[in-house]
Amino acid sequence: MNPSASTQTLGVVGLGSMGWGAAVSALRRGITTWGSDTRSDVLERFAAAGGHVASTPAELAAHCDVVIILVVNAAQTEDVLFGNGALAQHLKSGSVVVASATVDPSLPPQWAAQLAERGIGFIDGPVSGGARKAADGQMTIMASGSADAFAAAGELLDAIAGKVYRLGDQPGIGSTVKMINQHLAGVHIAAACEAMALGMRAGADPRQLYDVICNSAGMSWMFQNRVPHILDGDYTPLSSVNIFVKDLGLVLDAARRLAFPLPLAAAAHQLYLATAAAGHGGEDDAAVIKFYAAIAGLVYRLGDQPGIGSTVKMINQHLAGVHIAAACEAMALGMRAGADPRQLYDVICNSAGMSWMFQNRVPHILDGDYTPLSSVNIFVKDLGLVLDAARRLAFPLPLAAAAHQLYLATAAAGHGGEDDAAVIKFYAAIAGLELPAAP
Amino acid sequence: MNPSASTQTLGVVGLGSMGWGAAVSALRRGITTWGSDTRSDVLERFAAAGGHVASTPAELAAHCDVVIILVVNAAQTEDVLFGNGALAQHLKSGSVVVASATVDPSLPPQWAAQLAERGIGFIDGPVSGGARKAADGQMTIMASGSADAFAAAGELLDAIAGKVYRLGDQPGIGSTVKMINQHLAGVHIAAACEAMALGMRAGADPRQLYDVICNSAGMSWMFQNRVPHILDGDYTPLSSVNIFVKDLGLVLDAARRLAFPLPLAAAAHQLYLATAAAGHGGEDDAAVIKFYAAIAGLVYRLGDQPGIGSTVKMINQHLAGVHIAAACEAMALGMRAGADPRQLYDVICNSAGMSWMFQNRVPHILDGDYTPLSSVNIFVKDLGLVLDAARRLAFPLPLAAAAHQLYLATAAAGHGGEDDAAVIKFYAAIAGLELPAAP
Repeated sequence: MNPSASTQTLGVVGLGSMGWGAAVSALRRGITTWGSDTRSDVLERFAAAGGHVASTPAELAAHCDVVIILVVNAAQTEDVLFGNGALAQHLKSGSVVVASATVDPSLPPQWAAQLAERGIGFIDGPVSGGARKAADGQMTIMASGSADAFAAAGELLDAIAGKVYRLGDQPGIGSTVKMINQHLAGVHIAAACEAMALGMRAGADPRQLYDVICNSAGMSWMFQNRVPHILDGDYTPLSSVNIFVKDLGLVLDAARRLAFPLPLAAAAHQLYLATAAAGHGGEDDAAVIKFYAAIAGLVYRLGDQPGIGSTVKMINQHLAGVHIAAACEAMALGMRAGADPRQLYDVICNSAGMSWMFQNRVPHILDGDYTPLSSVNIFVKDLGLVLDAARRLAFPLPLAAAAHQLYLATAAAGHGGEDDAAVIKFYAAIAGLELPAAP
Repeated sequence: MNPSASTQTLGVVGLGSMGWGAAVSALRRGITTWGSDTRSDVLERFAAAGGHVASTPAELAAHCDVVIILVVNAAQTEDVLFGNGALAQHLKSGSVVVASATVDPSLPPQWAAQLAERGIGFIDGPVSGGARKAADGQMTIMASGSADAFAAAGELLDAIAGKVYRLGDQPGIGSTVKMINQHLAGVHIAAACEAMALGMRAGADPRQLYDVICNSAGMSWMFQNRVPHILDGDYTPLSSVNIFVKDLGLVLDAARRLAFPLPLAAAAHQLYLATAAAGHGGEDDAAVIKFYAAIAGLVYRLGDQPGIGSTVKMINQHLAGVHIAAACEAMALGMRAGADPRQLYDVICNSAGMSWMFQNRVPHILDGDYTPLSSVNIFVKDLGLVLDAARRLAFPLPLAAAAHQLYLATAAAGHGGEDDAAVIKFYAAIAGLELPAAP
């Protein structure tokens, strides 16, 4: 136990799945912790676990050196800070607020400025990792803020998180990195559902497909994590479809303000909306596969019929092709939003937005080296073959179709013979991005 | 009756909806007409109508000066000409073949060359207008071919068609123009379904919506023609969903070979595939609205509840925004494929691919004049508002989302303040098109 941590008092506003985990992790470390929530039963459970309960953020404020706000969205965060919660009004000068909801990256700098007028420090610190990691004190915090704020709050954050990325002194960077992570996570879940649905429609055994893809180029962290829900038919929400209706919505809003196109994220967002529209918004986000099941009447078939090998290969190419394009779109958006590309790479490789292709191809972008290991033209061809096969099966692939357009656009601009990571040049060309140059 | 027409003998291979109309129109004009088809009942009906019947194209060949092939696709056309049909082998030197199926524009030049070796002329002559117009002798033929071929076959074609566009002496131009028409027709039907579905979901009265849009900027020929099927709940196929699974597939194949991206056509194609996948492939193409109904549980509400005016306005903006982007995508593809842009404009304005926005905005492209009547930024904003409204209704809009990305990409490239027809610059930039310059 770090001795300085134990002398500070932590406040947690919002004892939902992430906030609860953070608060009980702090208690386990012997840190005096106050919690506030609108639900009285949650507060009773927190008191029983050894926490101090406050019925309002204002009441909590007076007791705490560091307050982490783990509510659902920007509107709730603002209400806690400056609205009915009146947290800012009651916090001591010298205390630090950590805002951890996933929000538009343009907001944290405004909050930081308003709090600074009252002598209160601020860390833009969105979290990831899910409820289980949070409860184990192992969540990730993507944090940016002043050196003073980190000096005051850093050790408490280290005590409740497995990893605290310190991403710079400007509030907004943390939320930008989180936004890029959500972009990739959202696209990868939808891609996993689209690919598994196509594989089943083509007659592959879904468990076999899962095993092979987890060890192939089509792997993503989300594929590994969410496809088991599909295999088990268990859509109890760890994170719901509605979360990505919101979070990809945020990503698209931010991109709209930056006048930045996101064809893949836009296509994926439509899939979450369609799934929610069909009544599955409250289910686990893997329920996006129900969109495909509903429109195409999926048939599960077991066994090793002829052609299974080429079906698995096709699914792997589907995912690999979508993931490379998603990696390029997300890295381009991150750069456009001002994030450092190497830092972004480092964080995403250890977060839910990771894919095998992201790990493998983004270094080409960082090094400005487009010597083809596998060229753009290969995916013009291979995603073309996947779309042809789906057409024969009368099966829709909106994500693969959107990704294929990106390879075509990149080839049309004369980069067909370059490494497939050159898809980022499509985004660079239309939005005037400066990409890392070869050394 | 044109005297020279009556001295020639016409052959029609394929007495389906268009071929039947062409053949009986010729009979009505007193032209000796031979028909061939694989269905004996159709041949019996044709004989009863005064036609001469041939059981194979080879049998028909010996009697005819001009043979029009009105089969389903390229494979059937090739089978008639060079395969089992053996038409080419049995035609007289000096006769002319008119190939009228919708096919990839790269094929007619190959057919023309093979026929020329036997002294047979060729016209690339896809048709449009539907079964009713064909039966009235009023279909449209989009034709290209040598002056000799037109000299030999032109008057017979004039006798069976309301309008024969003579688009130049290179086979393939006719099919290119037809391809652009199908691109627009396919996108417009899907857009009509998406917009009507959104309007109903937002509580508008569908008949009122139809009446207003038919007289507004969101109008398209397809909207006028197909939405009544939705209003009447009558999905008896005039032209089926499967036709556009095929025809937009052809458009995408041709674009793939040209390395040309078509994000809107790709998004629309997915909607036809999804509708076919759900079992509606054989229904009228307006059944694409069932895709939206299935995933979002459409509710029909009647009456003038508050907000109806702004809902109608929203639907109009949806369609106007999608139609401008579609006009730019289609014109860009046509230019990339070598069509003359003014000729293309002229034909499309009189065909099923017409929209109010196509008529209004394409002249800006032809004149190279991007002085903003309404700017790209207006649709960045207005389609953004439509997508926001749909998000609040948990309603997916894949086409509007794809179109919005195109306005964003155009704005990102620095053209936000120009006329909204500047969306074509997005395609020009990524594919190296030379656009018409200002005079």
